[in-house]
Amino acid sequence: MKTRIKPDINDLLERSRELLEQSALSQVSTSSPLHHSIAYHLSTPGSLARSKLSLSASSALNLTTDESVRLAAAVESLHNASLIQDDLQDRDAIRRGKVAVWKKFGPDLAINATDLMLSSAFALAASAGGGEAAFALVNTMHQAVAKTLEGQTKDLSHEGLQRLEDAVAVAKEKSGPLFSLSLELPLVLSGHDEYLGVAREVGAAFGIGYQIFDDIQDRELDRAAGDRFNLALMIESVLSEGSCFKTAEQLAHHYLDQAATSAASLPNDCAALLREKCMDLLMKLELEAA
Amino acid sequence: MKTRIKPDINDLLERSRELLEQSALSQVSTSSPLHHSIAYHLSTPGSLARSKLSLSASSALNLTTDESVRLAAAVESLHNASLIQDDLQDRDAIRRGKVAVWKKFGPDLAINATDLMLSSAFALAASAGGGEAAFALVNTMHQAVAKTLEGQTKDLSHEGLQRLEDAVAVAKEKSGPLFSLSLELPLVLSGHDEYLGVAREVGAAFGIGYQIFDDIQDRELDRAAGDRFNLALMIESVLSEGSCFKTAEQLAHHYLDQAATSAASLPNDCAALLREKCMDLLMKLELEAA
Repeated sequence: MKTRIKPDINDLLERSRELLEQSALSQVSTSSPLHHSIAYHLSTPGSLARSKLSLSASSALNLTTDESVRLAAAVESLHNASLIQDDLQDRDAIRRGKVAVWKKFGPDLAINATDLMLSSAFALAASAGGGEAAFALVNTMHQAVAKTLEGQTKDLSHEGLQRLEDAVAVAKEKSGPLFSLSLELPLVLSGHDEYLGVAREVGAAFGIGYQIFDDIQDRELDRAAGDRFNLALMIESVLSEGSCFKTAEQLAHHYLDQAATSAASLPNDCAALLREKCMDLLMKLELEAA
Repeated sequence: MKTRIKPDINDLLERSRELLEQSALSQVSTSSPLHHSIAYHLSTPGSLARSKLSLSASSALNLTTDESVRLAAAVESLHNASLIQDDLQDRDAIRRGKVAVWKKFGPDLAINATDLMLSSAFALAASAGGGEAAFALVNTMHQAVAKTLEGQTKDLSHEGLQRLEDAVAVAKEKSGPLFSLSLELPLVLSGHDEYLGVAREVGAAFGIGYQIFDDIQDRELDRAAGDRFNLALMIESVLSEGSCFKTAEQLAHHYLDQAATSAASLPNDCAALLREKCMDLLMKLELEAA
């Protein structure tokens, strides 16, 4: 009997990381500051949350190891592009415990590094799919990039974020599409295009829920610092007596629960890891409330 | 007898322009400043030199009208991305006779608009090729993007451009890859991958020759303004007695001649339009010298 040995997740993450680096760095001379800036940024990999979601979905949907690793690298490349650019636009000087790319190499190099990581993401996505799939993967990624940029653009005009709906829309549009894409690419490549709408709902709800959860953790620090852009603080200030939600915790709970429920309807339980993450955050919310 | 009616170039350019706009703009809400900034930039189309080169090559290589239009839109989308970004990085306030995107909408929006045009370029390239071609087109574009960014990065460190070789390398790397890509994409889609190396030589030589020619036109203005980054002035100041080239004109002539000669070796004379452009510039150089 032939047993199929599931490859170790850490091996796949490592292969995906190597591929991501190679796709961007092999195209430019090692003496170029562009090479240095990307190598510097990638030397601290971060949580790899999107890679893990993508690898897990690919495995559930029976994609090959090669396909899985390429899709994970594509999503992670896009995520890294967005981080380098976010830090520049928000003038955040620290990323992953060290000086951010724009601060260390200058804004122009951060812009060029973002472009190259974005370009790499498309090359990686296209490399995963033979036949008609390459276009479908690239096009799905283009849509996610456009939505992310629209959210990022909304985020630039901070004045517009006084209303809770706007702040929630930004959280949904800025982080939702890349979480969603981690599921969408494996769904496309395994021929489950009919589930893309559900994957987007899952990504959007998770993006909002996760952002509120995250801002709840920083709430007291941000309150003391007078940071008006903490979602949890904004929610507190606008949730009215008549609203069905009384606290930021309740709203986070609502979205995380919604993400988990929608995720369960995806084929082969391919978003099991995202469901687990939702459950984990929901439990933490309850423990904190207790 | 079935006669094949060649579509009018202006019709194809118009279809390509519509496709380019649609690919970027249909993905974002019409109320988003991101939408406004791109629509604003695209409302003045420029010379469409790369679209024309691409359409002409596609026609010579017997690609379908649909394929030709998609490739032209992809190259033009990439070119527009690079213009929006160049203007931002060089702080050039005017583009195509009106206020540049970064100056009108702010640097952050210029960055987002560049990203979306870049993303669109990949989606358009992938949409032109069924089967295995989609990956090949996307990967060819990724390589061109990387080379362009490497040249742009070199251009950022102006101190390094005191040496003529460096200045020529920047001209080659910054504008060569997108001229080359206009030929490369049709070559890839028509199955002539073995000519990609020649196409890159053509693009590089044309990029340098064209840039020197262009700077020769601005030479006296730039001399008066003390602009040290005019290639023609730099060439004057470094060409030594022992050099085989005595003037910027001679160097421009050399590269344009080289581009035209290499271009002639491409299949089906698919770079005929680029050869004509070289001949046109060479004639102007000779008329100016007379």
